[in-house]
Amino acid sequence: MQVRTSNAEWKGTLEKGSGTMSLASGTYEGPYTFASRFENGPGTNPEELIGAAIAGCYSMFLSALLSNAGFEPTRITTSAAVVLGDGPAITSITLETEGVVPNLTEQVFQDKAEEAKRNCPVSKALAGTEIRLVARFSE
Amino acid sequence: MQVRTSNAEWKGTLEKGSGTMSLASGTYEGPYTFASRFENGPGTNPEELIGAAIAGCYSMFLSALLSNAGFEPTRITTSAAVVLGDGPAITSITLETEGVVPNLTEQVFQDKAEEAKRNCPVSKALAGTEIRLVARFSE
Repeated sequence: MQVRTSNAEWKGTLEKGSGTMSLASGTYEGPYTFASRFENGPGTNPEELIGAAIAGCYSMFLSALLSNAGFEPTRITTSAAVVLGDGPAITSITLETEGVVPNLTEQVFQDKAEEAKRNCPVSKALAGTEIRLVARFSE
Repeated sequence: MQVRTSNAEWKGTLEKGSGTMSLASGTYEGPYTFASRFENGPGTNPEELIGAAIAGCYSMFLSALLSNAGFEPTRITTSAAVVLGDGPAITSITLETEGVVPNLTEQVFQDKAEEAKRNCPVSKALAGTEIRLVARFSE
């Protein structure tokens, strides 16, 4: 069992305040504001952290599924587009994954790509939002 | 509506491979491995990104709830302990929040702290995992 304890602090009101988010490992601390979250201001925001988390979990999980089936991937590259809509609410996440996997068939790749979407730990935790998948494959 | 597109890449097998996760804003790119996720190796992992995301979203949302009720917070500081257990699965997230808010009562603080846990966008997206809350308050 692993426990990862990350931190955040917010000072002041929603519109005029500002904050920081930092990772348990100490490898990153980033500022965020109303503008970096709801507009296009500089800084980070929770949604891009969620996106990196699911893209990372998904890529690692799909690699494991393929390896277990006897196909070691050269690489799995995944983007996650996280949509923050009215509410505010995270209304959808679209995963686009590209796999370079020698000796594999398109059908097995698509099956494993769907299985990874359903079963990777971050996908399962994010049960409150719709996750879509586009999967592309080459040898 | 805001769309944040973050990225990840994994090369090789689960145990011997390695990857990177990067944020849409370009403010961070971090390496991850089997050891940085399932052991105590150096590097990042998806769970600590999830933790920073919910701690950041929660702190900002609670600040907004308090401000809307007429109490501008000096600061809201939140940690999120994300547990990765057997499966692997994210089995729980414990939020510990400390608010410094002038002129507020304990009861109003606790009510708003619970409301933020239920309704912040990242909490709602993470419907597949149990979220616990410990909230402390001072003026």
